Amino acid sequence: MDLVEELIDILSSDKVTINETILEHHSKDESHFEPVLPDVVVFPTSTEDVQKVILFAKDNKIPIVPFGVGSGLEGHAIPIHRGISVDFSQMNQIVELRPEDLIVKVQPGVTRLQLNQELNKHGLFFPVDPGADATIGGMAATNASGTQAVRYGGMKDQILDLEVVLADGRVIHTGTLAKKSSSGYHLTSLFAGSEGTLGLFTEVTLKLHGIPESMMAARACFPSVKQCVEAAVSILSAGIPIARMELVDARSIVQVNRFSGTDFPEKPSLFLEFHGNEAGNESDAQFAQELFEEHQCQEFAFEKDSLKRAQLWKARHDLAYAFLHSDPKLQTIYTDVCVPISKLTEMVEYARERIGAHGLDGAVLGHIGDGNFHTLALFDPKNREHVQKIERLNEEIVKFAFTLGGTCTGEHGVGLGKIKYQRQEHGAALDVMAGIKHQLDPDHILNPGKLLPVEKWTGV
Amino acid sequence: MDLVEELIDILSSDKVTINETILEHHSKDESHFEPVLPDVVVFPTSTEDVQKVILFAKDNKIPIVPFGVGSGLEGHAIPIHRGISVDFSQMNQIVELRPEDLIVKVQPGVTRLQLNQELNKHGLFFPVDPGADATIGGMAATNASGTQAVRYGGMKDQILDLEVVLADGRVIHTGTLAKKSSSGYHLTSLFAGSEGTLGLFTEVTLKLHGIPESMMAARACFPSVKQCVEAAVSILSAGIPIARMELVDARSIVQVNRFSGTDFPEKPSLFLEFHGNEAGNESDAQFAQELFEEHQCQEFAFEKDSLKRAQLWKARHDLAYAFLHSDPKLQTIYTDVCVPISKLTEMVEYARERIGAHGLDGAVLGHIGDGNFHTLALFDPKNREHVQKIERLNEEIVKFAFTLGGTCTGEHGVGLGKIKYQRQEHGAALDVMAGIKHQLDPDHILNPGKLLPVEKWTGV
Repeated sequence: MDLVEELIDILSSDKVTINETILEHHSKDESHFEPVLPDVVVFPTSTEDVQKVILFAKDNKIPIVPFGVGSGLEGHAIPIHRGISVDFSQMNQIVELRPEDLIVKVQPGVTRLQLNQELNKHGLFFPVDPGADATIGGMAATNASGTQAVRYGGMKDQILDLEVVLADGRVIHTGTLAKKSSSGYHLTSLFAGSEGTLGLFTEVTLKLHGIPESMMAARACFPSVKQCVEAAVSILSAGIPIARMELVDARSIVQVNRFSGTDFPEKPSLFLEFHGNEAGNESDAQFAQELFEEHQCQEFAFEKDSLKRAQLWKARHDLAYAFLHSDPKLQTIYTDVCVPISKLTEMVEYARERIGAHGLDGAVLGHIGDGNFHTLALFDPKNREHVQKIERLNEEIVKFAFTLGGTCTGEHGVGLGKIKYQRQEHGAALDVMAGIKHQLDPDHILNPGKLLPVEKWTGV
Repeated sequence: MDLVEELIDILSSDKVTINETILEHHSKDESHFEPVLPDVVVFPTSTEDVQKVILFAKDNKIPIVPFGVGSGLEGHAIPIHRGISVDFSQMNQIVELRPEDLIVKVQPGVTRLQLNQELNKHGLFFPVDPGADATIGGMAATNASGTQAVRYGGMKDQILDLEVVLADGRVIHTGTLAKKSSSGYHLTSLFAGSEGTLGLFTEVTLKLHGIPESMMAARACFPSVKQCVEAAVSILSAGIPIARMELVDARSIVQVNRFSGTDFPEKPSLFLEFHGNEAGNESDAQFAQELFEEHQCQEFAFEKDSLKRAQLWKARHDLAYAFLHSDPKLQTIYTDVCVPISKLTEMVEYARERIGAHGLDGAVLGHIGDGNFHTLALFDPKNREHVQKIERLNEEIVKFAFTLGGTCTGEHGVGLGKIKYQRQEHGAALDVMAGIKHQLDPDHILNPGKLLPVEKWTGV
């Protein structure tokens, strides 16, 4: 029997496919990395299905690569060693919503918009918002974050429990329904962000938040990116519990206006949001405005109206796509470093200088309250010189972030793109990571070639 | 040469002692577990010293037990297999404070009050506040939390980086200075809460917070504990970002008044605190008061004055000592379960019923906003029947918490006291933990007999 027949035998024919279009869809993500077709795509509908697939892969030493909606930016879901792509789209149920506990248990294929639509009915929301409508499983696997992380934290901070199928078929739970625990080792945060290399998630239990009584958005324009950054730092130092604080440079606003039909002033800007009660938000916003004046703020506009507010954040979330889809011949690269906040000005100025030096069309934007920002640059993937420039730019930015005490990825993950920086970032800790990987997946069947710069563990 | 001479040779004579009083001091913590004298106590002053001690212990297969100030409640620091107690009191320097980045790097022997005294000069604070003036190293090792976790999270949520000396002498860093990262496996949360069983911390880098513009404390009395719990749940469901919400039952208030000289009404109470700007706090407090009225709140008193506010929280923090030191012949046990918030009423009522059924003098108090509470009961450690009752009470509460989806320890850690519940709580995940322990400490020299219910790893 061949691979496909055996998998059909284990699962059923409707859960296994080698349809060319579907293989193609599972060969890539939103990154510029070369697509690679999987040998087969499976669509499990239960933990048991996932367990069966993993045991089969283990017995036959076949690579297994989890797939959500393919919105990753670092090639996580590309099956570079072929094998089985495990598509979680059929595991997209909200298993249990406990509004009174502010807890929800979901299958990994649930997307963030699907989840928030359901939560909204109960006056609740889930704050982690990467630009794409990613799956919760994918977001957990990459430790995604987004615009609200400055207030609510990223993905690993929201997870109470993961149900994980390990490489040998064992099913574990990493936590309980308790909001905090000091019992055992904290495996939840070890598996969150492990990019499918330690196990496949089959259930994710999340903390939720009550929708604040009042949400107030605002835009502020400054003469330069430097002043945007300095103004943002002043907000944090003052202890204002800002819920969102996004840097969007002039080049980005041009693209936003073009793509989203908005008419924001095409100047370096901060997009802000305050969560709380109305009196508190007004007081915070007024204080922010006063602080911004010291940084030559040129315009401070409120978006109080909930429609206007939604439009602002939709425009921000669509920014990546605004660049990506601006020209079908061009691709986009996103750098993703995160540095201590006091170093942001220096970091952002360096990034902008390098974009210019390479003669690229690029923008700077990001989650400035966390020190996490993206340089976004367009390039022609068929032009070798272009690709080399882009890779050099990414490398320069990562290396500079390291000199400032930062990390090579704030939220996009390692995937294929950041593997080469893992030793420099983690030093001897990388051997500890490799040891854990080897212990849990000795045959390296789980998403091989991702996250860790080792194909085979060579001992610590 | 004997153990002491060899250690003196490696360190120096002023860093090694077998003085009886000092051995005695390192034989116990605040728990009721039997003291055990270490063979020797060492006082390292640098990472290199810790490395030397660990390499010596590894070569000679001698147990190593880290020691902060001995304020633990589950016997973590008791050297049950004797060996070397590593006292971090000489590593008590604030290494680097970066106010603009809201980051501080400290040695593990710095205590939380020492740290906050320094931070206060810069308008900053560190929110994790277990009752005792514990060391940051000890708090990191047990994943401590306290009254402000409901707003700011517990210890693992504050740590950006740990410098760890592993059992084979390697020194690793688990993070960077970046506020968030998706690079590699998240080792910080694996080591935080590992209770000295995976490595010894020699430096801890923490996130800080700006002191809020306004802090407003309040007390609210209710006819019953049940109504306190229901009132607390209503605050959370309404999305009020409460900074502190503590349950203190009538028996506890009696003890508080006796010990701290306060005159709080001796009724089931919530102690609250709001952090933000003045307008926002007032609005939140008013909303809370309205919600509480629906739960028959009998008194809602503000403690606006900063002295009164400090007195309130000092009384709360001293509560454990108020019981512990009420009678020199008696000991206290603290249960420490954490359950989903909707189950709190049921859980607390069960605990109070069991205290009564065993005929014990006990109280119920805790961090109700997190679902984490403590049953506190007095007993005579020399009375065998008493001790058995206490142990039965603890077990009953843990088992009941499990049926509600909770954890056996919300913040005190496993130590000796919660080992017997680890398999039931973690199931197959416990084998993953044991595998990690074995990989990092194959000879089990690091705090043996704590956290994991295995002396020697038996394979997964």
